[in-house]
Amino acid sequence: MTEDKIEDLNGLKIRLREFAKARDWNQFHSPKNLSMALSVEVAEIAEHFQWLTEEQSKDLPKHKLAEVETELADTLIYLIRLADKLNIDLIRAALNKIEINEQKYSVDKAKGNAKKYTEFNK
Amino acid sequence: MTEDKIEDLNGLKIRLREFAKARDWNQFHSPKNLSMALSVEVAEIAEHFQWLTEEQSKDLPKHKLAEVETELADTLIYLIRLADKLNIDLIRAALNKIEINEQKYSVDKAKGNAKKYTEFNK
Amino acid sequence: MTEDKIEDLNGLKIRLREFAKARDWNQFHSPKNLSMALSVEVAEIAEHFQWLTEEQSKDLPKHKLAEVETELADTLIYLIRLADKLNIDLIRAALNKIEINEQKYSVDKAKGNAKKYTEFNK
Amino acid sequence: MTEDKIEDLNGLKIRLREFAKARDWNQFHSPKNLSMALSVEVAEIAEHFQWLTEEQSKDLPKHKLAEVETELADTLIYLIRLADKLNIDLIRAALNKIEINEQKYSVDKAKGNAKKYTEFNK
Repeated sequence: MTEDKIEDLNGLKIRLREFAKARDWNQFHSPKNLSMALSVEVAEIAEHFQWLTEEQSKDLPKHKLAEVETELADTLIYLIRLADKLNIDLIRAALNKIEINEQKYSVDKAKGNAKKYTEFNK
Repeated sequence: MTEDKIEDLNGLKIRLREFAKARDWNQFHSPKNLSMALSVEVAEIAEHFQWLTEEQSKDLPKHKLAEVETELADTLIYLIRLADKLNIDLIRAALNKIEINEQKYSVDKAKGNAKKYTEFNK
Repeated sequence: MTEDKIEDLNGLKIRLREFAKARDWNQFHSPKNLSMALSVEVAEIAEHFQWLTEEQSKDLPKHKLAEVETELADTLIYLIRLADKLNIDLIRAALNKIEINEQKYSVDKAKGNAKKYTEFNK
Repeated sequence: MTEDKIEDLNGLKIRLREFAKARDWNQFHSPKNLSMALSVEVAEIAEHFQWLTEEQSKDLPKHKLAEVETELADTLIYLIRLADKLNIDLIRAALNKIEINEQKYSVDKAKGNAKKYTEFNK
């Protein structure tokens, strides 16, 4: 596999498959368990931000940013594994969702507010 | 932008930037807030699995799988946004983490067990 | 305050108020931040269970159970703090919700299945 | 059971046991599953706060506050169920943890900062 090929989601998916297989970890990687692991990693991101103001969260000291980067990596890793186990194409799914969001959150209704689309008329 | 180019993480990142900008949503997209949104979406994945057995989670009915796909999409979308706001290259971060994991979880120590590397000698 | 009185939710609430005040921590304890802290603690509970089977989760080794107990304590602590900041009576709220659930999930419809009440006819 | 007795954690625990038993739901209530349900409910709290400023989170409109109250109730309900299944006394566990915190976060070290105790010297 070329370096070029490995550097996308598909390349990561293959590499993570091999990683799990070599360690006999597929027995642990049910979608249920992977969804739990994903929520644990995401909480480790949130832990860095919980007592910061929004402004502070935009300007992390370097060593904190490096820690957050590692948690983002873990999150992506479990997200790829979960999608792989469910035979979901993440990029395709995200593109579909963005198209749906572009309709649900039309610019004229959504501009400048963070309301959920179900609350536009409230 | 070509269809080919849009179909990777970088293409999604650009498209999500434009989406947020058009709606004047950058004011809401602090890393702190995005980390909360990410944890909310991940919980919506877990909600589908919470009462299922591991076996059931591997064999979702079609309409459930479609719902889970949408939650995975939302998760990826917020993960990309958060990484963008922090100037983190997700693919690069994941590759680095996989290399670290390959050392922490060497095949001889990790094979067939789900222990955290800090507990290998317990 | 008597030992007897301190041993309920109300006693804990008072004690946690004093704890936060003495450390000048009310500046950090907005409902938003407390909701994040709560989700972080709950993920630390889930972390102990993520790779276990359901059966294993019922029979934790003693040292694991002690760790989980600490995470449950942290969860209750932040839940009490959050309710206090929002002027919500937790016991009263739970009683109300149980009464709602008893109607939504009537025994004849809910017995032996884990469907959400919105899916009873599916 | 008197009204007086039901209005504490222990009363809620008994009532939730009866609720689950009548619906034959103990089969779903493994500690693993309950920890997932707990994280889902906590995310539903966070969902209300994710796009609000800290100031806005302190001053919810009445209908939002009522929704948040319901999510807090659900969180307490699952926390009680989980503790019950693990034979953990929540009040006792919280008191123990508060005592530990009073030592870890002594007023002189913790006053006015939100550092984790492991980072006091950083």
